[in-house]
Amino acid sequence: MAESFGVRLRDRRRTFGALCVGIDPSASVVEAWGRASSIEGLEYVARETVEVVSELVTAIKIQVAFFERFGSAGLRVMERLLDDAREVGVLVIADAKRGDIASTNEGYAEAWLGSASPLRSDAVTASPYLGVGALAPLYRVADETGRAVFVLAATSNEEGRDLQEARDAEGRRVRDRVLDEVAARNNRDDGLGSIGVVLGATREPPAFDLARVGGPVLVPGVGAQGGTLEQVARLSESCAPDSVLVNVSRAITAAGPDRGRLRDATRRWRDDVAAL
Amino acid sequence: MAESFGVRLRDRRRTFGALCVGIDPSASVVEAWGRASSIEGLEYVARETVEVVSELVTAIKIQVAFFERFGSAGLRVMERLLDDAREVGVLVIADAKRGDIASTNEGYAEAWLGSASPLRSDAVTASPYLGVGALAPLYRVADETGRAVFVLAATSNEEGRDLQEARDAEGRRVRDRVLDEVAARNNRDDGLGSIGVVLGATREPPAFDLARVGGPVLVPGVGAQGGTLEQVARLSESCAPDSVLVNVSRAITAAGPDRGRLRDATRRWRDDVAAL
Repeated sequence: MAESFGVRLRDRRRTFGALCVGIDPSASVVEAWGRASSIEGLEYVARETVEVVSELVTAIKIQVAFFERFGSAGLRVMERLLDDAREVGVLVIADAKRGDIASTNEGYAEAWLGSASPLRSDAVTASPYLGVGALAPLYRVADETGRAVFVLAATSNEEGRDLQEARDAEGRRVRDRVLDEVAARNNRDDGLGSIGVVLGATREPPAFDLARVGGPVLVPGVGAQGGTLEQVARLSESCAPDSVLVNVSRAITAAGPDRGRLRDATRRWRDDVAAL
Repeated sequence: MAESFGVRLRDRRRTFGALCVGIDPSASVVEAWGRASSIEGLEYVARETVEVVSELVTAIKIQVAFFERFGSAGLRVMERLLDDAREVGVLVIADAKRGDIASTNEGYAEAWLGSASPLRSDAVTASPYLGVGALAPLYRVADETGRAVFVLAATSNEEGRDLQEARDAEGRRVRDRVLDEVAARNNRDDGLGSIGVVLGATREPPAFDLARVGGPVLVPGVGAQGGTLEQVARLSESCAPDSVLVNVSRAITAAGPDRGRLRDATRRWRDDVAAL
C-alpha cells in the first residue's frame, strides 16, 4: 500500500507551508517571458518555473489545457515536466478538471492516477457535472495508489456561481451538496482522505462545515484572479488542520524568466501564506 | 469563413441520417475484440471501427479518455485517427467534456477546434460546471473555424440527475438553464448555430422548448446504456429539423472485429434511427 496523499501532504506542508504554485503557461504568459507561444516556448517557461519553484513549495498545480493545446506533443512536454517534479519530490496536482460517466472515468483514472501512466500525478482535479458518484473510479485508483482527487465545489470565477448555488430537491446548494458527498466518501484512516475539494478564494465560505470534508482543500483564485489572503484566512480557519493548499499562479510567474526574481516572488508568497 | 458545422451536418445527414457511432475503446472493449488492452490494441480497435463505420454514418464520437489513459502516446493514436476520419469526410465529435475558467478554455479551444491543432475535430463536448459563459473561447473558435461545441445539459447517467435538476434562484432547473443560455448565444445565420447541447436519451424531455436551442442536439445513452429509440423519438420531435444526432456505441462495437458483422450492425442502427 502506497503512503497516502494526506500523509505526504502533511509531511511536506510542515516544511514548506500551504503554498501551491500554479503552472499556467498560456500563450500570453509564454509571450510575457519573451518567447514565442510555440511548443519550445511552452517547454522553456514550464520547466524553468518548475525547476525554480519546486524546491521552495509544497505543491505545484499544472494546468493541462496549456499543454493539450499542442496535442500529443504538448502532453509529451507535460510528461517530461512530471518526471522532473518527481525527482524533486514536490507534490503535483494535474489541473485537468476531468469528469464523465463512471465507465469513462476509468480511463481518466488510469491516465492521471494509474501507477503505469506517463501522466501520473499526485492528484488530479475533477468536475462533478455528471455527479460526484460518477467519479468513483478516480477515488478507487487514488486510494490504491496513494494519490488524490480534488472535486470542484465552488470555483473562483463569476460565471460558475449561479449553477454552483442552485438548490437540489432538499434545498442544499450544489456546492454544499458536493462537499457533503465528498465528506461521506472520504476514508479518514490516515487523518485525511484522498478526496479533496476545490473552493475558490473569491467566494463566500459555504454553509457546509468544512472541517467535515475529511480531505484536502485546494483554494485557487488568489492574486491575479482577485482573491485576497484575508478571504483565504477565513476559509482556512474552518478547515481541518494542515488540509489547505493555496494556489497562486500569475502573481508569481509574472516575475518573468529571471530566476532570482522568480525565487523571491515564490518565497514572498510562501511567507504571506504561512502567516495566515 | 469556413462552412459552418450546421451546414455540414445537414448535408451529411441528408445522405446518412442521424446516427453517430461512439468510438469507446475501453480496456474491456479492446479485450472483447481479442486484443490486449495495450496501445497497439487500442489503435487496432479504434482504427478498424473508424474505417468501417465512417463511410456509413453522419458522425463518429471519439471518447478521449480511452486514448488519454496512455498519455501522449494515446493522444498520438487519436491524432492519426482524426487524420483518417478527415480523409473520409465523416464528422468527428471529440468527446472530451472539457471545461474550466475562460482564460484556461482558450487552451482547450485551441486544442480541439483550432485549425492548426493536430487534435482538431469538427466538434468537442464541454462541461458547464464553471458556467456556460466561461466556455466563450470555445464558442468563438468554433464560429471562426466552422466547428461546434456540444455543452452538457442532461447526461444519460443516473448519478448526474440531482445536480442537473437543481433549481437556480429563478426556479429554473440547471439543465434548462444550460439550454436557455445556449439558445441565447447561438448565431442562427446558417439555420443552425455552432453551440449544441447534449441531452441523454434516458432522461425525460426537459421543460425547455428544444426547438429554441438553435444548435445541434447530441443524444447519447441509446443501447447499452438503456435508452430506447422511443425515448429518442420523443426528444427528436421537439427539436429543430435535422438538428439531432443519436449516438450508439457499445451496441455497435459489440459486433466485434469481423468487418461484415460490424458493417451490418452499423447499417441496422442507421436504419432504425432513420425510421424515427
